[in-house]
Amino acid sequence: MHIIDNLQYANWSEKIFKQMREGGVDAVHVTIAYHEIFREMVANIEQWNRWFESFPDLICHARSGDDVRRAKRDGRTAIIFGFQNPSPIEDDIGLVEICHMLGVRFMQLTYNNQSLLATGCYEAEDSGVTRMGREVIKEMNRVGLVVDMSHSAERSTLDAIALSDRPIAITHANPNFWYPAKRNKSDAVLRALGETGGMLGFSLYPHHLKDKSQCTLESFCEMIARTADLMGVQHIGLGSDLCQDQPDSVVEWMRVGRWTKQIDYGEGSAAHAGFPEMPDWFQDNRHFGNIAAGLRAAGFSKDETSAIMGENWLRFYDANFTAA
Amino acid sequence: MHIIDNLQYANWSEKIFKQMREGGVDAVHVTIAYHEIFREMVANIEQWNRWFESFPDLICHARSGDDVRRAKRDGRTAIIFGFQNPSPIEDDIGLVEICHMLGVRFMQLTYNNQSLLATGCYEAEDSGVTRMGREVIKEMNRVGLVVDMSHSAERSTLDAIALSDRPIAITHANPNFWYPAKRNKSDAVLRALGETGGMLGFSLYPHHLKDKSQCTLESFCEMIARTADLMGVQHIGLGSDLCQDQPDSVVEWMRVGRWTKQIDYGEGSAAHAGFPEMPDWFQDNRHFGNIAAGLRAAGFSKDETSAIMGENWLRFYDANFTAA
Repeated sequence: MHIIDNLQYANWSEKIFKQMREGGVDAVHVTIAYHEIFREMVANIEQWNRWFESFPDLICHARSGDDVRRAKRDGRTAIIFGFQNPSPIEDDIGLVEICHMLGVRFMQLTYNNQSLLATGCYEAEDSGVTRMGREVIKEMNRVGLVVDMSHSAERSTLDAIALSDRPIAITHANPNFWYPAKRNKSDAVLRALGETGGMLGFSLYPHHLKDKSQCTLESFCEMIARTADLMGVQHIGLGSDLCQDQPDSVVEWMRVGRWTKQIDYGEGSAAHAGFPEMPDWFQDNRHFGNIAAGLRAAGFSKDETSAIMGENWLRFYDANFTAA
Repeated sequence: MHIIDNLQYANWSEKIFKQMREGGVDAVHVTIAYHEIFREMVANIEQWNRWFESFPDLICHARSGDDVRRAKRDGRTAIIFGFQNPSPIEDDIGLVEICHMLGVRFMQLTYNNQSLLATGCYEAEDSGVTRMGREVIKEMNRVGLVVDMSHSAERSTLDAIALSDRPIAITHANPNFWYPAKRNKSDAVLRALGETGGMLGFSLYPHHLKDKSQCTLESFCEMIARTADLMGVQHIGLGSDLCQDQPDSVVEWMRVGRWTKQIDYGEGSAAHAGFPEMPDWFQDNRHFGNIAAGLRAAGFSKDETSAIMGENWLRFYDANFTAA
């Protein structure tokens, strides 16, 4: 069994990389851009290159499913790059392939707000995928950069699923039927996602959880079982959204970037502006075993549990990370 | 036999790519930066990506010797990226690895002028490799980005050869003993280059040739024979510096960049400011056969001729394009 977490944005450190090994985590899709322009995002890859150089026994850069398998054999955690926002491609479609050459494998078309490509889930009006968005989806399909609609609005997400010739992903979100939140997804979106071979990664970020930080493992796994019924067990995995050890200034950067001079609290509030507490059964990378056990307790077979814990993502990587 | 030209900067077009195929050219090291900063250089790779997409039967991007072999099998010309100046890494050593990730395989430490790394061949004083230069050479050695000293001054070049743990290249220049020019190289440099496993690519740019545009094939091949005696036949190849179809504004950009408000004529003069006429026996990529025949006539064996025409570069690529 491979354990794959398809979204984290921790305050990376040797401690966290060691916890990944301790938890048997074979691959993590890490966010390398929220609001960065191209050159700033490149500086973030430079920082990752220093970590790869400093901790070669713990982590390595992965561009493919086979890189993940190699990492597992070598006892390392494979790191896959992704953007939560298309800001690194600026207004330049040629940067899609450049980013792919640098190893980027997921890109959200929007992060909460309207982008050049589509509408985010916090906008009052959702005008769908834009002219440039259509062109960029085609280019992403061509080179093997996966469309991610985690923070996008409903119509834009359905547009992207319909426009993309290859399966897309919602790397970190949960179903609205379980906990209605701006960031969680409707049955219509999840059904369309599954029908087109796409993947949903279940989020453990408390703002996406029923009862937030008090969410129980049982409730979480029961939700996964209902989502499997809706989408098919082969189209679901994990995307924890773990933001371990980040100072609260980082969640402010995520929400505010440089687009406003005001504070925007996003999923939080003035009274609870910072990162919420993670559930006690999922504090860090050492706790994926709890989820696997919870899935078995919720009635999933051993094979189904393996599929959800990582094999589904691995198969998705094999199919979608290289040129069409 | 592989035919490899280890330096060109043409005004690229389908016509030229077809001439490469007609001439049986298996690989070309192309310049993608003279004075560009990082983001501008990336735009040049974007342009190459469009050519790869538009002419997939003629050319493909190569990152390794094996990519060159694959290209030959597929009947395409492999394109290898390089910089004539370290301007794309700006003042940021982390960009060395980023450029390597983008497929760049050669970088000159200087282009005529003083750079952050070393001294160019047009400076009055040659202060050798700088503090940052030493660090960047180490980093280039680590990732597999080849040091190129074609436009560097004597002491800086000898420094680079001594400081580099891996062989370096002078991708396009000729020996001073044949034609003394600022851009041509001393016996001391060539001997040190050969002794450390480095490579010299012979230039066909008329300003580097004895009798310039009137240089004869016999004189050129006789010069190669004398250089083989000096350096060893396994350390020489071609780096034509072919600038086919370029308007004269481009040679001005090469010489002047943005570093002066005056016109600098470099190897030319006010009376002859533009690109010089190529010798009649080497007008474009269809004429490598003339050189191979000239080498046989100058006394090189079939194997030696193959080595000079491309096998030496291919072996050099195998050894020096990947992480140490």
